[in-house]
Amino acid sequence: MESVRKRTTIRKYQSKEVPSYLLADLLDTSFRASNTGNMQAYSVIVTKDADMKARLAPAHFNQPMVKNAPVLLTFCADFHRFSKWCEERNARPRYDNFQSFMNATMDTLLVAQTFCTLAEEQGLGICYLGTTTYNPQMIIDLLRLPKLVFPITTVSAGYPDESPKQTDRLPLEAIIHEEYYHDYTPADIDRYYAYKESLPENKRFTEENNKETLAQVFTDIRYTRKDNEAISANLLKTLAQQGFLSE
Amino acid sequence: MESVRKRTTIRKYQSKEVPSYLLADLLDTSFRASNTGNMQAYSVIVTKDADMKARLAPAHFNQPMVKNAPVLLTFCADFHRFSKWCEERNARPRYDNFQSFMNATMDTLLVAQTFCTLAEEQGLGICYLGTTTYNPQMIIDLLRLPKLVFPITTVSAGYPDESPKQTDRLPLEAIIHEEYYHDYTPADIDRYYAYKESLPENKRFTEENNKETLAQVFTDIRYTRKDNEAISANLLKTLAQQGFLSE
Repeated sequence: MESVRKRTTIRKYQSKEVPSYLLADLLDTSFRASNTGNMQAYSVIVTKDADMKARLAPAHFNQPMVKNAPVLLTFCADFHRFSKWCEERNARPRYDNFQSFMNATMDTLLVAQTFCTLAEEQGLGICYLGTTTYNPQMIIDLLRLPKLVFPITTVSAGYPDESPKQTDRLPLEAIIHEEYYHDYTPADIDRYYAYKESLPENKRFTEENNKETLAQVFTDIRYTRKDNEAISANLLKTLAQQGFLSE
Repeated sequence: MESVRKRTTIRKYQSKEVPSYLLADLLDTSFRASNTGNMQAYSVIVTKDADMKARLAPAHFNQPMVKNAPVLLTFCADFHRFSKWCEERNARPRYDNFQSFMNATMDTLLVAQTFCTLAEEQGLGICYLGTTTYNPQMIIDLLRLPKLVFPITTVSAGYPDESPKQTDRLPLEAIIHEEYYHDYTPADIDRYYAYKESLPENKRFTEENNKETLAQVFTDIRYTRKDNEAISANLLKTLAQQGFLSE
């Protein structure tokens, strides 16, 4: 519990390799996570080769972790393997739909997060690359993912070469709701976001971006309507191409 | 690591309550999980009230855990709170799209799984209810979820009152792929699924359902085309109603 309580995302890694036996043990143990109907609708692509990292980097907007981390793990929703088993066993699989994609996505993320929690407990540092769903087609092509396999997230891992300050979190009462959802009054919003807004780094960030409020940095620069809509359209198109939107 | 290695899903719980301080600490610690842009696009609805459990039970096809577990946690993708903050701060949020839904879903599942890993380490047992996305509208109504809030998964938790056998998992090499996806030959499928198919409980399960193969139990009974397509259509309709499919 302590390693989770103190955790920070690590973006700089020592050149030291992650031992193969440790990586295998962490992955194998993480596959004990709960999953839908014990179908294990996921695959993990392990990238260690420098050339493969260099080719994957543009898909992740050249974030430095892609080339610098000793290992990258691309966690994929996978109904291909299960469907192939069905076909080999005289059964007729139809997992080419949105519900199956959602089940596979859940299975995949439970494994990814179990891996990360265990890896940190063992002294490794990790970083999630949210860019995986921004450029899925590039990743599909490079990793040769067949239909019914979709890249959900990528994790870079290695021994930490930095010790960053923990980022802020909203207070517990801002996130949990007893029995039913209690909507937020303007006073609640003020109270829950006060600490975040008070942080010198966030004030500086707002100023540097010439914005009036921190929220405007999100809506106008970091996660804009234009980007969100373009990424959404591309994501839905790629999901259809990978065979997950027959319904 | 040992508690994950040995874990099993727990469906029967002692009547003993989960202490409030422990639940709060587990949730607060799990919010340290990685998330997208530190937006924390999730909420957790805590159900302890017997009447609320009884009302939620039909949405989960009356699985006994819903009424019998001391606590149920419904983990929701939530861009409502963040959007409300933006609106209060003279910013114009547009998180009503599929990409934002996917980001929020990832944030939500990372928290859910961190909670489960920590809870098990502290001696609790958990069960994921995959039924949450089968009847989302019932859950939305009962938990009074506003637009841009969507129930992703539900976890029942409590002190274990059973110690079930661990279920099987595919071998490590069936799941991981070095550098790129290596497709499965029929011989690979035979090898990877041999242990699962050899288990007496799976042979019995196949016979009891009058099927030739275990795979047919999945395709014809447990996860059928008809159900998958109906659930997919309903899920997409509900996602649109909750405001997540403007693009």
